[in-house]
Amino acid sequence: MEQKMKNVVAGIDIGGTNTKFGIVDQKGKVYADGSISSDTHKDINLYLDELAASVRKLLEDSGKDTKLEGIGVGAPNANYYSGAIEFAPNLRWRGMIPLASLIQSRFDVPVAITNDANAAAMGEMMYGGAKSMKNFIVITLGTGLGSGIVVNGGVVYGHDGFAGELGHVNVFEDGRHCGCGRKGCLETYVSATGIKRTVYELLARRIEESELRSIPFDELSAKNISEAADRGDQIALKAFEVTGKILGKSLADVVALFSPEAIFLFGGLAMAGDHIFKPARAFMEKNLLSIFQEKVKILPSELIKQNAAVLGAAGLIWKEILD
Amino acid sequence: MEQKMKNVVAGIDIGGTNTKFGIVDQKGKVYADGSISSDTHKDINLYLDELAASVRKLLEDSGKDTKLEGIGVGAPNANYYSGAIEFAPNLRWRGMIPLASLIQSRFDVPVAITNDANAAAMGEMMYGGAKSMKNFIVITLGTGLGSGIVVNGGVVYGHDGFAGELGHVNVFEDGRHCGCGRKGCLETYVSATGIKRTVYELLARRIEESELRSIPFDELSAKNISEAADRGDQIALKAFEVTGKILGKSLADVVALFSPEAIFLFGGLAMAGDHIFKPARAFMEKNLLSIFQEKVKILPSELIKQNAAVLGAAGLIWKEILD
Repeated sequence: MEQKMKNVVAGIDIGGTNTKFGIVDQKGKVYADGSISSDTHKDINLYLDELAASVRKLLEDSGKDTKLEGIGVGAPNANYYSGAIEFAPNLRWRGMIPLASLIQSRFDVPVAITNDANAAAMGEMMYGGAKSMKNFIVITLGTGLGSGIVVNGGVVYGHDGFAGELGHVNVFEDGRHCGCGRKGCLETYVSATGIKRTVYELLARRIEESELRSIPFDELSAKNISEAADRGDQIALKAFEVTGKILGKSLADVVALFSPEAIFLFGGLAMAGDHIFKPARAFMEKNLLSIFQEKVKILPSELIKQNAAVLGAAGLIWKEILD
Repeated sequence: MEQKMKNVVAGIDIGGTNTKFGIVDQKGKVYADGSISSDTHKDINLYLDELAASVRKLLEDSGKDTKLEGIGVGAPNANYYSGAIEFAPNLRWRGMIPLASLIQSRFDVPVAITNDANAAAMGEMMYGGAKSMKNFIVITLGTGLGSGIVVNGGVVYGHDGFAGELGHVNVFEDGRHCGCGRKGCLETYVSATGIKRTVYELLARRIEESELRSIPFDELSAKNISEAADRGDQIALKAFEVTGKILGKSLADVVALFSPEAIFLFGGLAMAGDHIFKPARAFMEKNLLSIFQEKVKILPSELIKQNAAVLGAAGLIWKEILD
């Protein structure tokens, strides 16, 4: 009896510190996964040689009957159109890195790359809560705020591949300093880093006792602010309310432009559950144009506890293959 | 010798006061045009009977060899998905009007409807400055601010058909009262009405002499503010600067989300030329994320002096037929 081939892709998530990858079938089943360091090699080619060897090893581990159909990559500043990582401040390699062609030359299968937030949106569409949706948005709340926006079933890349920078929409004139060199960007308020800044502002302004007063800024995280809020800490609760309010208000504007079916939140801050979802929903509704009221869901990503970035990268290339 | 048929569509632009229409071929040539009043008939069916008779007359005038391929309609609150005008405050007919099917029953050809700003975007794409573009935005600056947003060659309708409400993005917390019932919407500052409000605010706050001090609010228009600015009127010049600054700043956020190739301005306020384009360009650039700087053009609509709404409605249905 002839054995049926298992068609799979490799999903690769390149972060500043680590690179994670998995062998994934069309339904999102992960046959094997692994990771290597992103910053051992100064030379991109040595790094990619190590990555290629690791992916080949995983493919062998997944069985002789596996056939690699393509490779999807999520990486900071990765441009879907050009196939290049363009001037990523958080990666070791400078300038323009023609990543897609460098990987393709090692595997000879289709390769697609995009940034991490767009990959998260692809993952949500292929394997998560957006399976039946054509218009939705995924917001990743990590160190910064990333967004993957889907319109008519396709990711919004814009003219040059760089669309979807919701984290850099201005929310306060002359507001907090942002890593991008400007002031008042949404991600300086709404992100794991943003809520830390809000906690410190509240600790400075207010006089309530708070367990957060004993934690230095560098050790503070969305997780311990969330745990303090669970225990009723007034500063932590207030910080979530402030953060959710700014997020909700911004989402009302986003809805006016895109009218999505749902907005999915992903990442450390989204793990705080009601602390962030409740004020975000309330302040979005309060600020929505009436035609949009009570129509748009704010939901936790269904991939929140999985390796969404690897699944998203896999989903990106599966969609290319299937279309 | 057999005569070749001229394939045409009817483009219809329904406004609160007048309904304009034209017989248009695929290249945008207008064979004949006309108009009727929009508010003579309280009964939508009587109105549509009159409209149908007028369109049939125009078709006859265009020659025996014309073949009607379809009808496109631009109308306030028109929903592309449902084919209905939904609760349009500025039209005589209340509630949900199933416009597309009512027209189709009179002509038996494909009918597509959308709101006026989306129709303007279709017109720009089919016949204007966006012919070669897949990602661009048309902003109509009339009584309010409308926007037609094109991503990957298609208009962004969103989940429910109501996307693209740039005029109702919030720009000032607790700002000017808006017709939508909220406060601080972009169109309360950036539109023909918005600049009038700014003029009155400036006349109240400042002491410069100005020819605008002699014009009552109800008689003030974008045109006479623009003419005063041409003559060096300080209040008029300042009003354009304020308006262009708010527009430019908002466009920087819009670019972060959509990364369009160009943004086209249309309507009364856009006719003011450099008075509005100069500050809009300057303040957009000043507020752009660095990856977008000096990439995005702000241009006057190429249909600015034509009947863009009729051409846009025609373009809408031509695109349906051709796809």
